[in-house]
Amino acid sequence: MENLVELVCVGNELLIGKIANTNAQWLSKRVTTLGLRVKRITVVSDDVPEIAASVRESLQRKPAFIVTTGGLGPTFDDKTLEGVAAALSSELELNDEALKMIEETYERYVAECRIEKVELTPHRVKMAKLPKGTRPIRNPVGTAPGVLAEHMATRLIMLPGVPAEMKAIFDESVAPLVQKVAGNLMFFEVSIDVRGVPESELAPLIDQVMHDNPYVYIKSHPKMSERVSHIELHLSTTSDDAVLAHQRMSKTLVQISEMILKKGGKTKPVETAPSS
Amino acid sequence: MENLVELVCVGNELLIGKIANTNAQWLSKRVTTLGLRVKRITVVSDDVPEIAASVRESLQRKPAFIVTTGGLGPTFDDKTLEGVAAALSSELELNDEALKMIEETYERYVAECRIEKVELTPHRVKMAKLPKGTRPIRNPVGTAPGVLAEHMATRLIMLPGVPAEMKAIFDESVAPLVQKVAGNLMFFEVSIDVRGVPESELAPLIDQVMHDNPYVYIKSHPKMSERVSHIELHLSTTSDDAVLAHQRMSKTLVQISEMILKKGGKTKPVETAPSS
Repeated sequence: MENLVELVCVGNELLIGKIANTNAQWLSKRVTTLGLRVKRITVVSDDVPEIAASVRESLQRKPAFIVTTGGLGPTFDDKTLEGVAAALSSELELNDEALKMIEETYERYVAECRIEKVELTPHRVKMAKLPKGTRPIRNPVGTAPGVLAEHMATRLIMLPGVPAEMKAIFDESVAPLVQKVAGNLMFFEVSIDVRGVPESELAPLIDQVMHDNPYVYIKSHPKMSERVSHIELHLSTTSDDAVLAHQRMSKTLVQISEMILKKGGKTKPVETAPSS
Repeated sequence: MENLVELVCVGNELLIGKIANTNAQWLSKRVTTLGLRVKRITVVSDDVPEIAASVRESLQRKPAFIVTTGGLGPTFDDKTLEGVAAALSSELELNDEALKMIEETYERYVAECRIEKVELTPHRVKMAKLPKGTRPIRNPVGTAPGVLAEHMATRLIMLPGVPAEMKAIFDESVAPLVQKVAGNLMFFEVSIDVRGVPESELAPLIDQVMHDNPYVYIKSHPKMSERVSHIELHLSTTSDDAVLAHQRMSKTLVQISEMILKKGGKTKPVETAPSS
């Protein structure tokens, strides 16, 4: 069985185009680098039936992991826990471990900022009301804990939408779970910049090279309209053998580069941006 | 009936985190500004069954529009038309109008770049094989035409993934269709920057203000972890009456700002970035 991951991103701000879904990009890159494959990303609004429907549909596809982002905070429009509870036909109940995490965060807050005691108002307690049978995940940089639910073969992980908190919880507590499922699988990628050959002339070359190198996936990304003939070719493969992966990538890279040169095109390597 | 829009974004590059889904952000912003609401965004891989499944699911929710991005080009991994044909239980067939559009683009290409004739290879003809019963939409800046399918009450519009082409086709041919459905509806928004009040203390204020101003939606966006107490409050409303909308927004803004001041917080307006 292939080990797939789905993302469910909750937030009206994504659906009105206020922000780009950089959380989904960061998580997709991380998951891919760890050796698993993201199969689908769904973005829904801050609405309980919408969240419940998307999580239910995702569970039916039986991925190894579902990661949700957003909707864990103290305000009325933070509805992910309620939506997930509905998807699991469960209910929210006060989780003592989560409440303790939140209390401790506020105690640190009081100590560090030298302010008066922070009261546990209903809006703060709300962050500790988790779907029954789930457990909180420590948030090293914020207040709302992450949440882990296990449903059949799927681990459903809820993360906050604030990028710094989402990343910190993922790296501390989720990455090890993903790593364990991925085993020794690793993702390898390289890009080359191609000029002077339009995409429609590259297409048959790519077909040929992918036929000869079935383990390497090649995708062409036109940088502008076809007339300018500037294309990024992205080669990737997933393997548990780094040496073999590099051999396969090199062989493929040499073959496609030579074919492009013969067509009168030029290639050069593309620096991959480091992940932040 | 509410007029909803769904986006289906096709591309492995989105699922490996190679790029952020800026196409979805741009389209969401445009659609929202035009007065309709984006209900869901789905991202799937360059895979016919995946594309077909996501489009089929989206059609079942009966939105006014489904807009797909990506997968219309000449390479083997451009599979959106095949996926949509499967979703519509239809087949691909050569569309004469689309072929003519592609030929004319290549003729301009030949004339402008003073090169030899560009042959209509199978990879180029592929871009003119549309699902039966659909029609091509002119691409003013690239080769692959957009495609329009009508299915029950839904208009299904396929756009290329290259941002410049996607935007040009949308603005020239899709925006007028959206506008017509939206009628006089307009979207209004304003943001204020709040410092000195943590999100969990803002939460009950927002509840109160939204209760008093049912037409205005308020969402809080913490800019960092709760301890720093820096939050963006985003107010929005959709209306066909600009004067009334401005009145509602102003009243809400004054009320929430006064409550924040009483709590010892500070507010200032946020400049909204112009859309590109």
